Amino acid sequence: MREYLERVRETAPLIHNITNYVTVNDCANILLACGGSPIMSDDSGEVEEITSICAGLNINIGTLNRHTVPSMFLAGKKANLCGHPVLLDPVGAGASALRTETAAKLLAELSVSVVRGNISEIKALAGAGSAARGVDADAVDAVTEENLDQAAALVCAFAAENHTVAAVSGAIDLVSDGEKTYVIRNGHPIMSRITGSGCMLSAMTAAYIAANPGHIAEAAAASFCAMGLCGETAWQRMKPEDGNSSFRNYLIDAVYRLDGETLEKGAKYEIR
Amino acid sequence: MREYLERVRETAPLIHNITNYVTVNDCANILLACGGSPIMSDDSGEVEEITSICAGLNINIGTLNRHTVPSMFLAGKKANLCGHPVLLDPVGAGASALRTETAAKLLAELSVSVVRGNISEIKALAGAGSAARGVDADAVDAVTEENLDQAAALVCAFAAENHTVAAVSGAIDLVSDGEKTYVIRNGHPIMSRITGSGCMLSAMTAAYIAANPGHIAEAAAASFCAMGLCGETAWQRMKPEDGNSSFRNYLIDAVYRLDGETLEKGAKYEIR
Amino acid sequence: MREYLERVRETAPLIHNITNYVTVNDCANILLACGGSPIMSDDSGEVEEITSICAGLNINIGTLNRHTVPSMFLAGKKANLCGHPVLLDPVGAGASALRTETAAKLLAELSVSVVRGNISEIKALAGAGSAARGVDADAVDAVTEENLDQAAALVCAFAAENHTVAAVSGAIDLVSDGEKTYVIRNGHPIMSRITGSGCMLSAMTAAYIAANPGHIAEAAAASFCAMGLCGETAWQRMKPEDGNSSFRNYLIDAVYRLDGETLEKGAKYEIR
Repeated sequence: MREYLERVRETAPLIHNITNYVTVNDCANILLACGGSPIMSDDSGEVEEITSICAGLNINIGTLNRHTVPSMFLAGKKANLCGHPVLLDPVGAGASALRTETAAKLLAELSVSVVRGNISEIKALAGAGSAARGVDADAVDAVTEENLDQAAALVCAFAAENHTVAAVSGAIDLVSDGEKTYVIRNGHPIMSRITGSGCMLSAMTAAYIAANPGHIAEAAAASFCAMGLCGETAWQRMKPEDGNSSFRNYLIDAVYRLDGETLEKGAKYEIR
Repeated sequence: MREYLERVRETAPLIHNITNYVTVNDCANILLACGGSPIMSDDSGEVEEITSICAGLNINIGTLNRHTVPSMFLAGKKANLCGHPVLLDPVGAGASALRTETAAKLLAELSVSVVRGNISEIKALAGAGSAARGVDADAVDAVTEENLDQAAALVCAFAAENHTVAAVSGAIDLVSDGEKTYVIRNGHPIMSRITGSGCMLSAMTAAYIAANPGHIAEAAAASFCAMGLCGETAWQRMKPEDGNSSFRNYLIDAVYRLDGETLEKGAKYEIR
Repeated sequence: MREYLERVRETAPLIHNITNYVTVNDCANILLACGGSPIMSDDSGEVEEITSICAGLNINIGTLNRHTVPSMFLAGKKANLCGHPVLLDPVGAGASALRTETAAKLLAELSVSVVRGNISEIKALAGAGSAARGVDADAVDAVTEENLDQAAALVCAFAAENHTVAAVSGAIDLVSDGEKTYVIRNGHPIMSRITGSGCMLSAMTAAYIAANPGHIAEAAAASFCAMGLCGETAWQRMKPEDGNSSFRNYLIDAVYRLDGETLEKGAKYEIR
C-alpha cells in the first residue's frame, strides 16, 4: 500500500473536480493534505481546457444541476481523450431520477476508472433495488459480516459489467476490479456523522489513481485504507468535549500527516 | 424542552436544504450534529422528488439566484402537499428588492411553518421599516430589554398575520406563534462573529420541527434554546489563542454532544 | 501598519463578495475575524443594489461561470460609480482562456483598486509568459531572493500600466502602486497547503482598502503583513498531530486576535 501513497506525494497530481458546493472545501483540503493539488471548475466554457492540464478528474453529482451536468460529460470525454483517470461519485443515485439517470449515463458514455459510492448508490446503479434514503446508505443495504459474500459478489459483478473499478465505502469497504475484491476493515462509525467523508474519499482516491494510473484497483484500495486508518487516528484524538466538527479537522489533519510506513502497518484488508 | 431534542435524535429526520453556498457545509454538519440528516438539492428537475423523500424543507435565500428561486417554490409546494414542515430563512431581506420580494412571495404562496430570521429581516418582511445592513441585523433594530415589549408585539403580530411561527434570533431571541411568545436569553455575542450562526440555527430548527410536527412553536423554541446554550458551552471552551474559527468548531461540537437533560437545565426562557 | 488594521476594526466595512464556492466560507469568516462584515451575492438581479450598500467589492473568479461573470461587471461598474474600492482576484488566470480573458476584461473595463494574485496569475495577465499550473503559482515563477529585482520590476510595471495596485503573494510578497513597491517577508510555507489562503487574503485586503480608501497601497501591504504574520502565529500553535485543517483554524483565529501593536512589531517589510 505504501508505494501508492508515496507516489501521490512524489507527483502531486493536479485533480480537476466538478463537485458539489456542500463539501467542496473539504475536498480541496483533503487533496492538499494527501499530497495532491485541487482545481475546481464547472463552466462548460473551460472544463475541457482545465481538465487537459490536470492528471485526473473527479466527477461528483452531489448538487448536480442543468449547467454542470453537460460540463461533466465534456470534461469526462476530454479526460478520456487525454488518458487521465476519471472517478465518478454518484451521490444520491437512487434518491432522484435525475441523479440515477445522470450517473448511469456518465458511466455508460465515459470510460470511468473508478465508481466510488456507498452500497445503496451502487445498488441503484446496478438496478438491484436500493433502499437509498437521501445521500446516505440505508441501514437495510449496509455491508455486514453476515451479508459480506453477497455484497462482494454484487460489487464484483458491477465492476465487471461496467468495465470499471467499483469502490464502495461503508462499515466494511469493498473495492473490486471485477476479478479480485479488496475487503477493507479500517474506519470508524463517526465518519458517517460528518458531511463529506464520502466526497473526501472520492477526491483523495482520484489523486491516488491519477498518481498510479497503471494500478487503479490497488491505488483505490490504498486510498480507502488510508482514509479509514485516518478515521481511526482522528477518533483517538477526540477529547470528551469534541464532536463531529473537531473530528472533521482531525481527519484531514491525519491525512496530512500519514506516511507510507504507517499506512502499510495500519491497513486492514484481505483480497478475495 | 428535552422531549423535542430527543425526538430529533430518535427519528433522525432527513432535511431537504435549498440554501446558500456560503454556510452550506456548516448547515450539513449541524444537522448531523443534532441528530438529523442533510440533503442539498436545488435543481428544478429534482427538487420535488427529493423533498418528497424528506421529513422537512429548509429554504434559505442567502445566495438566491434565478435558477434556485423557482426550485424553492416547487419544493415548497411539494412539501406542503406532503405535509412536511417548511422553514424559511429570509437572509438579507431588506438588503435588496430581490431578496425582500422573493421572501415575501415565498411566505405568501407557501404554507410556511417557521420564518427564522434576524429582527431586521422580519421588520423588512413586515414592512415595518428595517434598518437592514447587509445580512446582519442592524444595531438600531436590535432587541434589548428596553424595547422588548414592542419587539415581542411586532414578532407576535407578524406570526399571526402570516399564519406562521416567527422565530427571531438576536441577543434576546423571540419565538411566537401569534398567541404565545417565547423570550429566550441563551447565547453569546461571539455567535455573531462567525458566518452561518443564523443559517445553522435555521437548518437545526428545520430538523426540530420535522421531528415534532405537532409542536412547531415549542420545537422551534427548543432549537433556539439548544443553539444558544451550545454557544455558551462553546464559549467556555475558548482558549486565549482561539478565535472565531475555533468557536465555530466548538459550537458544532457542542450541538453534537448536547443531550435532553442538559438542554432542560440550561434553557433560559419565559413565555409571554 | 497599525492604523490600517485599526481602521478596519473601527469602521467594520461591509464587503460585497462575488467569489468561488470552494473557499467562500473561509472568506466570510476571515472578514468577520479581521473586523469587517461579509455579504455574498452573485445574481445579476441584485448585485448592483447589494454593492451600493457595501463599502468595497471583492471579485474572485475561482469558479467563474456564465451567470456570475456578467454580475462581476455589473457590480464592478456600480462600485466604481459609488467610489468603492474594487479588488480583483484573477484565480487561475493562465490556466484557461476563459479565466485569462475574463480577468483581463475586468481589469480593462473596471477601475480596479487592487489586483491580488500569485505571480503566475500576474504574469499571465501581463502577457509575460506564465508557467501557471492550475490555481497555484508554478515553482518556475516563484519570487525568490535571487530573482527579486526582476519580479519587483515586473509587478511595479504591471501596476503602472494598469493604473492599479498589484499585490502579489508568495514566499516573498510584493505590493506595488507603480511607483513604490513593498517587499514583504512574513508568512510560512504551510499557507500553500490549505485551500483559500489566497482567497482569504483577497477578502481581507478588500476590507483593508475599503476602510482606508485614501491609502490603497499602504492598506494592501498592511493586509499582506497581517496575513503573513498570522500564518507565523498559527504555525507556532501547531501540535505534532496537527495538519492543514487545524492550521486553517489557527490562521483565522490569529486574524481574529491580531491587534495593531502586534502587527506593527511583527510586520517584516521594506519599501523600494
